[in-house]
Amino acid sequence: MIVSSHGTHRTLFVLVSATVALVLAIRVGGAQTTAPDGREVPARMLPVPNTVSLELQQLLAAPIPGNWNTPPNTPEEWDAFAAQIDRAPRDPQPLLDRFDIRFEPMVVNGIPAYMMASSVIPPENRDRLLMHLHGGCYMMGGGVAAMYEGAMLAGFGHFRVLSIDYRRPPAFPYPAALDDAVSAWQGALEIADAKKMGIFGASAGGALTLSTVLRLKQGGLPLPAAIAPGTPMSDLTKSSDSFYTNRLVDNVLMGTEARCQAMAEVYADGHDLADPMLSPVYGDMNGFPPAVLTTGTRDLLLSDTVRVHRNLRRAGVDAELHVYEAQAHANYVRDIPEAREAFEEMARFFDTHLDR
Amino acid sequence: MIVSSHGTHRTLFVLVSATVALVLAIRVGGAQTTAPDGREVPARMLPVPNTVSLELQQLLAAPIPGNWNTPPNTPEEWDAFAAQIDRAPRDPQPLLDRFDIRFEPMVVNGIPAYMMASSVIPPENRDRLLMHLHGGCYMMGGGVAAMYEGAMLAGFGHFRVLSIDYRRPPAFPYPAALDDAVSAWQGALEIADAKKMGIFGASAGGALTLSTVLRLKQGGLPLPAAIAPGTPMSDLTKSSDSFYTNRLVDNVLMGTEARCQAMAEVYADGHDLADPMLSPVYGDMNGFPPAVLTTGTRDLLLSDTVRVHRNLRRAGVDAELHVYEAQAHANYVRDIPEAREAFEEMARFFDTHLDR
Repeated sequence: MIVSSHGTHRTLFVLVSATVALVLAIRVGGAQTTAPDGREVPARMLPVPNTVSLELQQLLAAPIPGNWNTPPNTPEEWDAFAAQIDRAPRDPQPLLDRFDIRFEPMVVNGIPAYMMASSVIPPENRDRLLMHLHGGCYMMGGGVAAMYEGAMLAGFGHFRVLSIDYRRPPAFPYPAALDDAVSAWQGALEIADAKKMGIFGASAGGALTLSTVLRLKQGGLPLPAAIAPGTPMSDLTKSSDSFYTNRLVDNVLMGTEARCQAMAEVYADGHDLADPMLSPVYGDMNGFPPAVLTTGTRDLLLSDTVRVHRNLRRAGVDAELHVYEAQAHANYVRDIPEAREAFEEMARFFDTHLDR
Repeated sequence: MIVSSHGTHRTLFVLVSATVALVLAIRVGGAQTTAPDGREVPARMLPVPNTVSLELQQLLAAPIPGNWNTPPNTPEEWDAFAAQIDRAPRDPQPLLDRFDIRFEPMVVNGIPAYMMASSVIPPENRDRLLMHLHGGCYMMGGGVAAMYEGAMLAGFGHFRVLSIDYRRPPAFPYPAALDDAVSAWQGALEIADAKKMGIFGASAGGALTLSTVLRLKQGGLPLPAAIAPGTPMSDLTKSSDSFYTNRLVDNVLMGTEARCQAMAEVYADGHDLADPMLSPVYGDMNGFPPAVLTTGTRDLLLSDTVRVHRNLRRAGVDAELHVYEAQAHANYVRDIPEAREAFEEMARFFDTHLDR
């Protein structure tokens, strides 16, 4: 028992010493590299605002699902999830009908895509082309759903839009989507002049818009004349403040323990999440084309968006920010009256910056 | 007992009927004019982000005061509060020293003011003048403190700045501050040409910037060439969504039960809070000059700011929005590295839009 007791004391001593050392290390580290402690924000009632459209009010009134923080976990669960994703895609047909848009499935430099054009293309837009990279946390939103957001800019803005159906994880993780976006861009350069072209997309599509430009810069390839990264998923390292301020305020993305971050990490496939090709907020934005950014005050990616805006401005880029009242993540890409306002801002921006 | 029992049943019946009627009335009313019900957002930890300056991290780490929601209430309490306000004003002297700014107290068309200029005024700014309306919930920030924010734009932007020391409640409620701002503007028109002038200010000063332009429009007076309403207190009716999403996230304004809203209501002095001269988000912004708006993602007035931005854009006004990561209300008007960025954006905007 005495030996045992000595052993216990020694173990305790070692544990205490290690703990003290660890605490000291954290303290010392904290003074230099980490932020001060945070604080708890108490529970609060969140009313639905009456200053926005009834359609948006309905979206904002949707409850947080009970299972919001239990995404798939094992490879098998992800495979099962992925197999279900494309069974009920967001249907672009009502939008195509509403705007009288014709589309043509095509393959651009090996990448499947949809070329869309409304029946009314004004003369100044006849030689212009916008390449669209859809959202969906890298894993969702492919197939015909890839057209949905593209149809909005084709419809509200009367531009020709080429929506790219890039490869997705788990079968095709990073850098497949980015490779496809760059390949599609190279193919699109044979359809139109880069000075008459833009790139846009929301969420993962916003991040891909930014990372594609980073890749084009690296490769010395022609850049688009303007870009519209919508609420870009620009920081997978969970460093953005709105991940915490808008946690469970945003009823679309909910929080970082929800499905979207998990899908993005499946896409990242073990690569460093801080790599600018995965978290473009850390990229060098010098020489970027003019950019218009869109988000909402309830967006979990509000900070992801405004941090990109600031980085662009610090790099001297002509960058515009539009933040919509009370909107959660990518609400402006839904069928609500506010969508017109957001896409007309983007269309006006492209019209200003693209050659005719 | 039988009568009593009948009575009880009757009372219950009346209560139930009244409740049903009330619920029906709410439902019917709800379908037409009020928003759907809200939901509860649970408590959460709010870390201090490490992507912002250490100086801003220190501001963000400040706790919420325990008495945050107990503002003065009676006229006597307000008088006592007001008597204390000017005893420890925010001292502009360190800023004046840092930027080598000389100031001159003066009276402009009957209104006390401070004319400021740094030792370096570039040729293009020699005939330009910015009128500054300070913040402080209408009640605070007067006297020499009126210069503080003005000194930042004078210093970072090398503009001549005229800071107005308008009258304040409880002694001088609405419309005294607005009357003074308009009078000072009329006086300033004898110093400089309206096409070479701007108006700016944060918080209550942002609201006054907007309501002054509304008044100038009404009176057919010359408008400034550009304005910079910073985080304008644009809606005293508590309709902005960020009053709820950023409640106790913003450790400067805290929430609508805190002192600032109470001070603004003392200023309003019983007038309709929805009057555009008190809540300029409800004003007609057609014909407004170009505007640059500034706020932060944690700002209780984030929505007050973005709603004004949207209203300006809908009115076809050239309006820019800058939202800074993690900043609470008017943090950019504090001595933090991010202040330079915010005021240089404003200075660049004025330089673009003011005649030389």
